[in-house]
Amino acid sequence: MTAFAGADERPLPELLLVAAERALDDADREPGGVDSVHVGNMAAEAFNGRSGLANALVGGLGMTGVAARRIENTSASGASAFEDAVAAVASGRHERALAVGGEKMSAADTATATEIISRITHDREYEQGITLPSFGGLAAAAYLRETDADRRDLARVAVKNHGNAVSNEYAQFGKRIDVEDVLASPPVAEPLRLYDCCPTSDGAAAVVIEAGPSATGDAVTVAACESATGTHAVADRADPLDIESVRTAGERAYDAAGFGADVIDLACIHDAFTILEWLEMEELGLAPTGRAWELTRDGRTDLDGDLPVNPGGGLKARGHPLGATGISQVIELVWQLRGDLPDERAVDGASRGLAVNVAGFGNNAVCTLLEADA
Amino acid sequence: MTAFAGADERPLPELLLVAAERALDDADREPGGVDSVHVGNMAAEAFNGRSGLANALVGGLGMTGVAARRIENTSASGASAFEDAVAAVASGRHERALAVGGEKMSAADTATATEIISRITHDREYEQGITLPSFGGLAAAAYLRETDADRRDLARVAVKNHGNAVSNEYAQFGKRIDVEDVLASPPVAEPLRLYDCCPTSDGAAAVVIEAGPSATGDAVTVAACESATGTHAVADRADPLDIESVRTAGERAYDAAGFGADVIDLACIHDAFTILEWLEMEELGLAPTGRAWELTRDGRTDLDGDLPVNPGGGLKARGHPLGATGISQVIELVWQLRGDLPDERAVDGASRGLAVNVAGFGNNAVCTLLEADA
Repeated sequence: MTAFAGADERPLPELLLVAAERALDDADREPGGVDSVHVGNMAAEAFNGRSGLANALVGGLGMTGVAARRIENTSASGASAFEDAVAAVASGRHERALAVGGEKMSAADTATATEIISRITHDREYEQGITLPSFGGLAAAAYLRETDADRRDLARVAVKNHGNAVSNEYAQFGKRIDVEDVLASPPVAEPLRLYDCCPTSDGAAAVVIEAGPSATGDAVTVAACESATGTHAVADRADPLDIESVRTAGERAYDAAGFGADVIDLACIHDAFTILEWLEMEELGLAPTGRAWELTRDGRTDLDGDLPVNPGGGLKARGHPLGATGISQVIELVWQLRGDLPDERAVDGASRGLAVNVAGFGNNAVCTLLEADA
Repeated sequence: MTAFAGADERPLPELLLVAAERALDDADREPGGVDSVHVGNMAAEAFNGRSGLANALVGGLGMTGVAARRIENTSASGASAFEDAVAAVASGRHERALAVGGEKMSAADTATATEIISRITHDREYEQGITLPSFGGLAAAAYLRETDADRRDLARVAVKNHGNAVSNEYAQFGKRIDVEDVLASPPVAEPLRLYDCCPTSDGAAAVVIEAGPSATGDAVTVAACESATGTHAVADRADPLDIESVRTAGERAYDAAGFGADVIDLACIHDAFTILEWLEMEELGLAPTGRAWELTRDGRTDLDGDLPVNPGGGLKARGHPLGATGISQVIELVWQLRGDLPDERAVDGASRGLAVNVAGFGNNAVCTLLEADA
């Protein structure tokens, strides 16, 4: 992957190319050996004034004669590209696939970016002026009201994720923060403040997926990658704290993998807002309903806890270049499961990891389970 | 599908929904029976200021818990969505898929639309000011120079396709034209004139793909759907009249289907410019190299010829709402192979049809072969 940044001066196609070349180098494979390319990107037409990213990438890699397309699933575009790439290989249709996600949000003016991102919600809710941060604020308020969590616990999610990013050279933010910093940051959507929210980012990430023995001997196995849509309008959900898409995608992934939440050693959770880390952990069975906050308060989701969450910094601190995020989560799991990382940011002895990438406020979710080779 | 139009006042999500509901009705299936949704669209972010079309469609259909994503492959987005939907079902990963393509180009101002469409070409060529119509003009000039075709033959492609559209109620243009009309229309990129070029359009199209017996007894079999990228920069191609992507996709499709060009009864060819109808027919083995024009001159590609091409009017006259086009080609073949169409626009006794949808000026192509059930 590229190091995520608030602004990367390189054009989006170059970011995708750099990430793709790094993935191929890491896998010790040549571009010519890839027969399917899946590019995850949300909004290059609006942010960067261009379409056809998959074909440009394939051209940049010097490849011809491959199956190539770009996949868009809003903020889960990266994981959707990964899901389709995995399915293409698992089915035997293709031997080796390249999943590449990227976004260059800094190129868009604020009005364009805000409009495109706000339109992800249901038309009726968009017309009523509800944005993704508003939903985040409403959910956070409801959660704090309904559980014994307090506002400081919510801030601890951001503090942990910023702390994890400090030693991640690919993270956007390298600054440690504390609970007081979060509480003193500007309000965004009460009770959420700026430091409860992920930033906008530029970046790209890529992985090679193939069947059979790897060239390097240190591949990680995709145990499952499954997705599901949820109820589109939040107002139509039985409980606004339910994220049905995450629950369904998780159940499908556990079924496909043949193991469950109880054996997950670490997780990359879509923490676009701090509250989402808790809600998704609960939907995925990583914490009892209404009690994920206890894991945060008790330090169990810290890097040295029994269930490290967002060891690379999460969307909050690694950054959230929309189409790249889902693939950067997979990369974080791969690095952790391989034991590639320096001690100060490694999860010890991890053998199974989970990643969840979410579109909009739960319109759609993709859950990936990876397993270290024995 | 919706009737294609220069401007359809309905918002894009509604166009997609109408097409999807018509496809489900036609297949006699409920939305709840669909487990994978593939939406083909090129540039809703730029044209319509929105992303997340697949999730909005799924919400509109009242579905939850499905795998859904939008597929973009510029002007071949529709066929790429169809290809991925077919692969999802053929692999057994999903039982029933819905492929829906759509575009609402009328919502974009001309500058935005021109910029996005021009950026499909290689960056270097874009920077040099070459657009898709320029490439079409250069190719047409080279073809007319190198073969015995004359300018009037090229015009006959447009005359035929307009003629075919007259009785197609879903076509954008219902006006018969003659060779003199084409030659008198305003120049676009010499020697191409306005009537050599497809219009911009609004519209949507959808198909249901499933394994096993259909509910209606009149399903058509997908014998193959294969794609390939070509050499991205036209300047890097050995011959600017080669469209390697179309040739490779066609070869793969014939291999997968177990039959070849010699048994194709009708074809839907990506005639964004008249010259492309000839070049693609030649790459697909439907005419010898440098001689497709003879089939046009001799009336063999007419509706009552031995190889009708673009019986529904093609991109030229049915219209070209980018993401919808590839799926509208499949629909035309289905209607023809089923024998659903009124006599004045039916191809008699057709049992095998080919469709080719092309991205940019041959960056990528998708070739579909359909076969009537015996």
